Amino acid sequence: MKILSFPDRTEWPELLARPVQSTAAIEKAVAPILEQVRTKGDQALAELSLKFDKIAYTGLPFQPGDLAAAESQLSDELKTAIRQAYQNIRTFHEAQRQPVEKIETMPGVTCWRRSVGIEKVGLYIPGGTAPLFSTVLMLGIPAQLAGCKEVILCTPSDHPAILYAAQLVGVTQLFRIGGAQAIAAMAYGTKSIPKVYKIFGPGNQYVTAAKMLVAKEGMAIDMPAGPSEVAIYADDSAIPSFVAADLLSQAEHGSDSQVLLVSTSKHIITTVHVALISQLERLSRRDLAAHAIENSKAILVETQDDAIDLLNDYAAEHLILSVENAEAVAERIVNAGSIFLGNYTPESAGDYASGTNHTLPTNGFARAYSGVSLDSFVKKITVQHITREGIKTLGPTIEAMAEAESLTAHKHAVSLRLASLE
Amino acid sequence: MKILSFPDRTEWPELLARPVQSTAAIEKAVAPILEQVRTKGDQALAELSLKFDKIAYTGLPFQPGDLAAAESQLSDELKTAIRQAYQNIRTFHEAQRQPVEKIETMPGVTCWRRSVGIEKVGLYIPGGTAPLFSTVLMLGIPAQLAGCKEVILCTPSDHPAILYAAQLVGVTQLFRIGGAQAIAAMAYGTKSIPKVYKIFGPGNQYVTAAKMLVAKEGMAIDMPAGPSEVAIYADDSAIPSFVAADLLSQAEHGSDSQVLLVSTSKHIITTVHVALISQLERLSRRDLAAHAIENSKAILVETQDDAIDLLNDYAAEHLILSVENAEAVAERIVNAGSIFLGNYTPESAGDYASGTNHTLPTNGFARAYSGVSLDSFVKKITVQHITREGIKTLGPTIEAMAEAESLTAHKHAVSLRLASLE
Repeated sequence: MKILSFPDRTEWPELLARPVQSTAAIEKAVAPILEQVRTKGDQALAELSLKFDKIAYTGLPFQPGDLAAAESQLSDELKTAIRQAYQNIRTFHEAQRQPVEKIETMPGVTCWRRSVGIEKVGLYIPGGTAPLFSTVLMLGIPAQLAGCKEVILCTPSDHPAILYAAQLVGVTQLFRIGGAQAIAAMAYGTKSIPKVYKIFGPGNQYVTAAKMLVAKEGMAIDMPAGPSEVAIYADDSAIPSFVAADLLSQAEHGSDSQVLLVSTSKHIITTVHVALISQLERLSRRDLAAHAIENSKAILVETQDDAIDLLNDYAAEHLILSVENAEAVAERIVNAGSIFLGNYTPESAGDYASGTNHTLPTNGFARAYSGVSLDSFVKKITVQHITREGIKTLGPTIEAMAEAESLTAHKHAVSLRLASLE
Repeated sequence: MKILSFPDRTEWPELLARPVQSTAAIEKAVAPILEQVRTKGDQALAELSLKFDKIAYTGLPFQPGDLAAAESQLSDELKTAIRQAYQNIRTFHEAQRQPVEKIETMPGVTCWRRSVGIEKVGLYIPGGTAPLFSTVLMLGIPAQLAGCKEVILCTPSDHPAILYAAQLVGVTQLFRIGGAQAIAAMAYGTKSIPKVYKIFGPGNQYVTAAKMLVAKEGMAIDMPAGPSEVAIYADDSAIPSFVAADLLSQAEHGSDSQVLLVSTSKHIITTVHVALISQLERLSRRDLAAHAIENSKAILVETQDDAIDLLNDYAAEHLILSVENAEAVAERIVNAGSIFLGNYTPESAGDYASGTNHTLPTNGFARAYSGVSLDSFVKKITVQHITREGIKTLGPTIEAMAEAESLTAHKHAVSLRLASLE
């Protein structure tokens, strides 16, 4: 961990910059994959899947038998945990529903919004060493609450916990296919995989590039993605071993994970550093984590105001506030994906089971993007009704504005109605 | 208007398809513009602005003197109209605020969401023949309500109504610059124009391509764009001249405007058609509108169910329901940008002054996207606090899931806390 003491504010941008990722080469590799799937459909999926993932794509979704078998392979302890997480995530996302509220903006002019689930959504869950069944819950539960009619899930994994979570959240079709070709299949549709209207989920750089390329064509996606990151703001009320454990739990995601510690206390930085070294020894993903920790920074600042400004500049995906007045500090944070307060709120809680969503904006995207929520799975359609009295009152306003914008047919549509009421 | 009677459902996709826009050539022209602005800043803005818009870019925002002069050039009638529209739009968007609600998902586990305005936003308003000051209201009012600190507006126009509306909504800096170069300036920042975190606003194909290209790099934008469109569903309760006027008010936007009439009544289609021809003669933008109307379609269907299915397949930006049971039909619409009910609710009302936003998803994007709202200008940050008791109850769930995902440091961050409480 690099320790930086009282850096000048002019140095902050460089200190807080994320590593620049060159995407041009990856896009060049991904574009032909998209094109192949678009033009050759399932045949391309079979070829690409064999080539990149050594999986024979069958063209068939997982069957009820596969799903029942998956359930029987999981321990009761794990199933209970998944169901508990399901319940908490559901409770938190359920509360995000917005009731319809009719607003009379003027007498006789009533406007409202209706939330309607996106009919067809696609979820992508990567394979690899860690089977991310937790992400199935994080994407599937709001889709279920939103009332999305078709929920397609693509994953190169056949891990039983992924299949079990997919059943819990009511995924309608689950295909074993991964990579950029899976994104292409959901974006364009093939004979076996339905075209969807919005694509969600994490993935490697190829999957991310595929999502950005189909988004350029108008496909809706959850958000742009980058390596996962945590920033921790700790004062002397923080317990150093907890802070170290939270830094490491971020670092084990990969060697490109971003880890930042900010404090006004030199003592806490030193004690966290000692705890970090000692805990690192015991980690199963030690090499990954060690590399991430090497590239990480601890920044000592003068005042709490400095710390808050710096954290707002950084715009962390996860922000742990292990400080005495954590809730008051949280009120002053304007850029972050998700905030964790106090000594007993580890990031792991939000990653799995407290109820909040773990699909969050990385790479500074928290300046403009929110994490996934129920909102991500609905469209809000505006509706309006104007009475005869209403158009009489509002009409002249519309006429004057349409006239000034030289849109005479817009004006005429009102004038005609006003004339009919005279 | 092409009249199609009872087309088979298998023909719907082709009937409802939007014209395919080839974007490759435009992207090729726009990419070097973005690169020039990124590397050469204000110097590139000056060169490009002179070349494309014949405007000498000064590097200075409009000054208080310019703004005061603008106000004095507008009629009192227009200023009153703009202020009335401002009030209605503000009332409707104000009601979109979501109060903070703390949810205890389990005893001792509390999660909530805070809405925070995006600090820096950029609004683009095109020039051209019709000065879109209404769009300044539609984008500026939610930005103002969200509490965005910097609201940058770029436009090649110096129309006094645009300057007046910009003052009303509290735009912080207003630059006279247009085209792809304006989008690039707000995306990358130059010496004169601040870099923003999200870009909003309509524009020609070059502006749209610029927005999609910077979005691919991670910049947030309002939504992808396409030609404007209206679908009208009318039955015998509809007044044909009103329907014709609404079709024409959409058609005057441009020759690529999409106009669709759906009915179960042959009589209404015929009478609307007659009214259309007669009203077209009197339009100032006759040529544009005539071209759009030529390419438009009237579709006669058997039943109301057919009409609703067809409209949901089409996913119109604007949907006028001029039918007896309009509100009940609206409840069954799942894909539309904004819905207008009954004979006295013309699209013009929502375009200007009823209160709803007129920045809406075109081109079928309404299947996944919402129109602009207060939500578009805020991020929702999740916050959580877990007590000692809370982590005792929730901890084992997190441990089991982290273990199953092979993320042992995630598990350890919880185990350490649980051990400290024993």
